[in-house]
Amino acid sequence: MQNDLLLKAARGEETERVPVWLMRQAGRILPGYRKVRASVKDFTELVKTPELACQVTLEPVHVLGVDAAIIFSDILVIPEAMGLPYQMLESKGPWFEKTIKTAKDIEALHIGNTEDWEYVVNALKLTRKELGDKLPLLGFAGSPWTIFAYMTEGSGSKTFSVAKKMIFSEPELAHSLLDKITTTTIRYLKDQVKAGADLVQIFDSWGGILGHDTYYEFSLKYIARIVDELSPLVPVTAFPKGAYFASEQLAKLNCRVIGLDWAINAADARKTFGNKTLQGNMDPCLLYANETSIRKATHNMIQSFGTRNYIANLGHGVYPDTPVDHVKCFVDAVKEYKAQ
Amino acid sequence: MQNDLLLKAARGEETERVPVWLMRQAGRILPGYRKVRASVKDFTELVKTPELACQVTLEPVHVLGVDAAIIFSDILVIPEAMGLPYQMLESKGPWFEKTIKTAKDIEALHIGNTEDWEYVVNALKLTRKELGDKLPLLGFAGSPWTIFAYMTEGSGSKTFSVAKKMIFSEPELAHSLLDKITTTTIRYLKDQVKAGADLVQIFDSWGGILGHDTYYEFSLKYIARIVDELSPLVPVTAFPKGAYFASEQLAKLNCRVIGLDWAINAADARKTFGNKTLQGNMDPCLLYANETSIRKATHNMIQSFGTRNYIANLGHGVYPDTPVDHVKCFVDAVKEYKAQ
Repeated sequence: MQNDLLLKAARGEETERVPVWLMRQAGRILPGYRKVRASVKDFTELVKTPELACQVTLEPVHVLGVDAAIIFSDILVIPEAMGLPYQMLESKGPWFEKTIKTAKDIEALHIGNTEDWEYVVNALKLTRKELGDKLPLLGFAGSPWTIFAYMTEGSGSKTFSVAKKMIFSEPELAHSLLDKITTTTIRYLKDQVKAGADLVQIFDSWGGILGHDTYYEFSLKYIARIVDELSPLVPVTAFPKGAYFASEQLAKLNCRVIGLDWAINAADARKTFGNKTLQGNMDPCLLYANETSIRKATHNMIQSFGTRNYIANLGHGVYPDTPVDHVKCFVDAVKEYKAQ
Repeated sequence: MQNDLLLKAARGEETERVPVWLMRQAGRILPGYRKVRASVKDFTELVKTPELACQVTLEPVHVLGVDAAIIFSDILVIPEAMGLPYQMLESKGPWFEKTIKTAKDIEALHIGNTEDWEYVVNALKLTRKELGDKLPLLGFAGSPWTIFAYMTEGSGSKTFSVAKKMIFSEPELAHSLLDKITTTTIRYLKDQVKAGADLVQIFDSWGGILGHDTYYEFSLKYIARIVDELSPLVPVTAFPKGAYFASEQLAKLNCRVIGLDWAINAADARKTFGNKTLQGNMDPCLLYANETSIRKATHNMIQSFGTRNYIANLGHGVYPDTPVDHVKCFVDAVKEYKAQ
């Protein structure tokens, strides 16, 4: 591979410089994406059309000069594969007409298979072909808890109290759903690797709304199962958004890379996560500042984490109204960093 | 005072049993509240009518048997006092027609005074009178950062990216607004104490969206100013929702009580916060479970925290759709707890 900085860093090898990419780099910040998005009926059509998904996946490689492409898709491919379709409502986020409430609902769910996510497989294959051996291609999935949260709640939520009601009042039912999601997700990520993903990231976007005990029981345990199945194939990144309270347990995960949000101090993270590779963690709102501030904050971040076992990124997806020049400034600031 | 369990616990004194109250105990969970709420034009009318505010403040004392009354009000009294009125939109939350964007907007804001929150003072006086010396009466305010977040964002938000944009791109402007809010809040809380509040709690509801550095600079520093001014008068509780990452710095606050959300493990909290009194921290979603589970979880919680220097509560406000019987079960479970 011509630029294998990110994979080397993920494996813990030395690199000439720190690799960089951004969560949600292929999205609304880019003009090409907005054009493609305007040309289709809805978000899911874009996700399900491999040529378009490939096109928007590659745009940040050209425009921003990042060190990896991440396949344009959505974590909600999994509920849909299991028989629970979603819509992406403009400025409202995901919405499910049906939600999971009973044992019968769970029984009716299908354990997904290749044919259920063939469009993702095809998008990955096409992107791999277009990308050649230029850069690594990243795959991803939501954590079982995060998928569970959407399948039971039916939409985003500040509290996810419907989802949490199930874990507290019917824990066995919750586990049976989490188990089914986990089995499906393992198949899905293995298919992504077969189709050309060089690394996979598990987004535990809603882990942070759980507590110290419930996180281990309802989220981490299932992430661990996925990590154990995927790690022999490719490096795996676990991104436990907002779950700082679970750091010690997260450190025991059998994955090479931990994604960090901006809550975490680099020195503390290094102490907790030992020789794992760390990815993150600038606050995406820092990209609203001027370029001098962005450059300074980026260099400070790298200095705090150190250049070894490190992948520069934000602590969350880039926000849609971020100026492209500012994003580019962040990427360039990583590339120009020289250790003092 | 007939029942001074909560104040004794707050001051670190021994108590016959663990005191208990719930954040949002005076609200939509109770039938009396819903009736009063239905009789007025909107939420702010209720907040601004001392007789009604007093009535809903006292309902949980009678119905639930809690060990303290907390004045029924809203943290957004402060923006309104400063010249930025809000509306509480049904099922959408707070909404501001004007928001703060520029230095001129900040200059135009008024540093609030007793006449701006006279209705809260009157509600407290009336409640104090009705309550007699039966129970402690709690006052409260939002943290300056939390109030800042609403004044700049104009509503609730998943990311508060508008608020955060200001701290990153115009930090001096942000500090000048935070300073003005802090000065106003200190006056406000001192007035609450004069009117009969026996303890005041500072709700840092949105501290958790800041990061390790920004939290200290834009939230904790201003909470510390309030705590330093109020602690000589009454015990002060700081409730830094979602700011687990800042625990070590929070431990240095000059307040007697720290409110904890459910992310935090009791043993870790005891280690970090030394001999401060801790308040919390059951997940409010646990109250959706059956009464056997609630009782067991409540007893486990008390056992983990220990009975000294402890005030039982939830880790967040009780959710509106929680059955009253379950809330009562939580309160009773605390009262019946016997150390093993």
